[in-house]
Amino acid sequence: MLTDDFHVFDTTLRDGAQREGISYSVADKLAVARLLDSLGVGFIEGGWPGAVPKDTEFFARAAQGELQLKHATLVAFGSTRKAGVAVREDRQVQALLDSGAPVITLVAKSDVWHVKRALRTTLDENLAMVSDTVSFLRAAGRRVFVDCEHFFDGYKHDSDYGVRVLDAAQAAGADVGVLCDTNGGMLPMGIGDTVRAVRARTGIRLGIHTQDDTGCAVANTLAAVDAGVTHVQGTANGYGERAGNADIFAVLGGLVFKMGLNVLPEGTIGESMRVSHAIAEIANLAPDTHAPYVGSSAFAHKAGLHASAIKLGPELYNHMDPELTGNSQKILITEMAGRASVELKSAELGMDVTDRPDVVSSVVDRVKERESSGWSYEAADASFELLVRDELHTAPSQFRLESYRVIIDRREDGALVTEATVKVHAGEQRIITTAEGNGPVNALDLALRSALGEVFPRLAALELSDYKVRILPGKHGTDAITRVLIETSDKSTEWTTVGVHPNIIEASWLALEDAVRFGLLER
Amino acid sequence: MLTDDFHVFDTTLRDGAQREGISYSVADKLAVARLLDSLGVGFIEGGWPGAVPKDTEFFARAAQGELQLKHATLVAFGSTRKAGVAVREDRQVQALLDSGAPVITLVAKSDVWHVKRALRTTLDENLAMVSDTVSFLRAAGRRVFVDCEHFFDGYKHDSDYGVRVLDAAQAAGADVGVLCDTNGGMLPMGIGDTVRAVRARTGIRLGIHTQDDTGCAVANTLAAVDAGVTHVQGTANGYGERAGNADIFAVLGGLVFKMGLNVLPEGTIGESMRVSHAIAEIANLAPDTHAPYVGSSAFAHKAGLHASAIKLGPELYNHMDPELTGNSQKILITEMAGRASVELKSAELGMDVTDRPDVVSSVVDRVKERESSGWSYEAADASFELLVRDELHTAPSQFRLESYRVIIDRREDGALVTEATVKVHAGEQRIITTAEGNGPVNALDLALRSALGEVFPRLAALELSDYKVRILPGKHGTDAITRVLIETSDKSTEWTTVGVHPNIIEASWLALEDAVRFGLLER
Repeated sequence: MLTDDFHVFDTTLRDGAQREGISYSVADKLAVARLLDSLGVGFIEGGWPGAVPKDTEFFARAAQGELQLKHATLVAFGSTRKAGVAVREDRQVQALLDSGAPVITLVAKSDVWHVKRALRTTLDENLAMVSDTVSFLRAAGRRVFVDCEHFFDGYKHDSDYGVRVLDAAQAAGADVGVLCDTNGGMLPMGIGDTVRAVRARTGIRLGIHTQDDTGCAVANTLAAVDAGVTHVQGTANGYGERAGNADIFAVLGGLVFKMGLNVLPEGTIGESMRVSHAIAEIANLAPDTHAPYVGSSAFAHKAGLHASAIKLGPELYNHMDPELTGNSQKILITEMAGRASVELKSAELGMDVTDRPDVVSSVVDRVKERESSGWSYEAADASFELLVRDELHTAPSQFRLESYRVIIDRREDGALVTEATVKVHAGEQRIITTAEGNGPVNALDLALRSALGEVFPRLAALELSDYKVRILPGKHGTDAITRVLIETSDKSTEWTTVGVHPNIIEASWLALEDAVRFGLLER
Repeated sequence: MLTDDFHVFDTTLRDGAQREGISYSVADKLAVARLLDSLGVGFIEGGWPGAVPKDTEFFARAAQGELQLKHATLVAFGSTRKAGVAVREDRQVQALLDSGAPVITLVAKSDVWHVKRALRTTLDENLAMVSDTVSFLRAAGRRVFVDCEHFFDGYKHDSDYGVRVLDAAQAAGADVGVLCDTNGGMLPMGIGDTVRAVRARTGIRLGIHTQDDTGCAVANTLAAVDAGVTHVQGTANGYGERAGNADIFAVLGGLVFKMGLNVLPEGTIGESMRVSHAIAEIANLAPDTHAPYVGSSAFAHKAGLHASAIKLGPELYNHMDPELTGNSQKILITEMAGRASVELKSAELGMDVTDRPDVVSSVVDRVKERESSGWSYEAADASFELLVRDELHTAPSQFRLESYRVIIDRREDGALVTEATVKVHAGEQRIITTAEGNGPVNALDLALRSALGEVFPRLAALELSDYKVRILPGKHGTDAITRVLIETSDKSTEWTTVGVHPNIIEASWLALEDAVRFGLLER
């Protein structure tokens, strides 16, 4: 489907994971990879197998069939062999082969200062390390890209050595030499000049990897393409160490909409906003509302500009059609709140509401009302389905909460006892149960399931598989609104529900209640 | 002190205030202007007198002496006269004079599409509007800059008309013609080419105003300077409509540190970080921790990079000295916690442990042990400082928890009652207090502060300013470990503490306890 002419290379899961505060589980990494694949990127760098245990597991599970990619090729990242060690003796290099990834990106030093002062080896040994490692991986049938670390700084220190590294990589069979602005100090003018100079001196295909320390990562990437590179690296939402990496959504927006390069499969760029927000959700970071192309405010107009002016000629006030990246013109109409999206989403979930305009209207109203108080259905399909079913009267009333009480007791000896009591009505019965848990949500979950277990035996198969909390801005820390997402599994499938409330326990309860209701539906 | 050779023009208070959610009071605007002045910018655009009542008041109070500027000149923003109206009859133009601002920026249409379709007048009348208004203001002794709205889009529609607007402005006495990428769709290559072409065709001094819709606002500004403009517009933290404006801190960083242009008075760029954070505070927005140059994580190093390497040569791993913008090198205490990072981090926090190898050893051991159970000191300097002080025996024992109990009761009518009781010992006293809160953490916080308030009156000044929850992967959702970060403020400073526990309430308690302990330290 995609040719090899232009590489869109995503490193959200490797370099992007260096952002302070990000910590993906293996399941998170698999989910992020699936999202990136739906965006249509050509390469997904999954991590450093052999160096990071979670990354090793990620590649193993991907190889076992947990990751079915439609567009992208999976890439493992690693280092050239150690100085003074034979490549076949280098366990880190062996781990790259063991990962099963068809493409390997090797990081190599290309700055004489770093070779001498950080690596503490000779310039020739460093070249041999590149050459040996590329050859070894090529002999094992892998495609190899070489990340030339600190290339631009190195070019200032010795403009020949980086080219020698590129030549060594090419001679050994590498496909791409990636020029990395590792410390992120470059501006686009310097990037363009250096790329042009290097292109004239080496035959290897060139790539670009930038960091945002001057606020120019996206521009630097595009300037490099303008100067002839055909391989760009970026991360979702620009996540990365320090000021971050080049934001892949802005890079793609620039390439596709501003430079006219069709670097993605037909139609996938329209997934940008959804993928951006879903990855933020998984990273447990609030999406940047002002991000170019994909921020919820990226096309929001305030000052002096009336809706009628926009109606007159949206092209006068927007640099592009917001829908091309899955975004929309207005602030208040969010992804879910339009009639069309409610219809589409319902159909996607197997509910036909096209001939029920009354239901669509009331769903739109309820979603708008709830979104104004911090709810979000973006990542909670099951709660959205319950909301639609409630309007369609196809969600039976299975149980009703009378009350609950949770007590967390920390005793003088340091022992913690957490206990929840729920009183629920199911059928003709009023049931009271108490359960202990290792925390308030666990105790509530256990108490509710113990209360309903006899009436609904299938509850036994349900398991709360993930729990996420986001604190939404408020005036004071603990006064803020809490949004809880709960993922529940019944072994064959998984669903996500949402609860929002100033009180974290009530927010959790609302998500739990939806989780159990959804689990009990006949589907 | 500053010559007129290069204009650093800040529009935080005018265009930057278009950002969704920002609403400055007049006092806020005065405070922001003082901060910008301390950064050394040459011009501060304060607003649109006559159009926005708060802006009219701002200029009036500034003129009455409430705003004493050391470096900057105050600028009023407004529009050219209306079509078909004599300039001296135009009340909006008169309001610009009345503001008393010595410099006026006039916005003028320079795109034929906009003149015809939005302004609905003729191309000649639009030129006359520019010419008349500039002449009128010049005759009244004001300096005039002209913002050519939609210049770059207009240049594509008719490459002559924008130049005619610039020429009309110059002929009437304007000092600067500012090329505006109003819809923000440009890339640096196009900006550079257009600026060079326009410079060859007009004699007026050129300026640049960019928006960040392609993620290139900073780069576009710098590319324009590279192509010859000598007047740059930006806003603090890039605040502005849609994706925002060019971030003035990143623009200044690029100009001063990367392009070697001394566009600020001696020493003021070192105020960047302070000014950035203070303006975020006034705008009531969380500072972007990953902002170039001024973000608290802009120089934070994590992965694979050992603190020993940084110690070896910081210039190998940073694009510049962080202290030049008032920032500092940040070492993340992560899994790789070694002796070198503990020493560096302690020094950063003002504790010298270099001659206490025993203390370093036990801190390393405690950090490693805690990190293995999910703790992270990355974002919690105050908890780390307490940990070191405990080993140094410089953290006095202020209070001791005997026990706490939290009850969350959801009653049948839906009412929620959350109540916390704490029993603490402080000095000779045993104190028991109970408080209600809107959630369990709020109740615990209130109960603890009420218990200790009499013994430690300074507790009254403390406020819990942010609360973050992260669920760390566990086998089951609610079995997972919870990490809580709490940010506390005492008006003059802020600190962050961490608590980790399977029970979210206990995790919150641990962070709260550290927050209060740190707040009570003599510092």
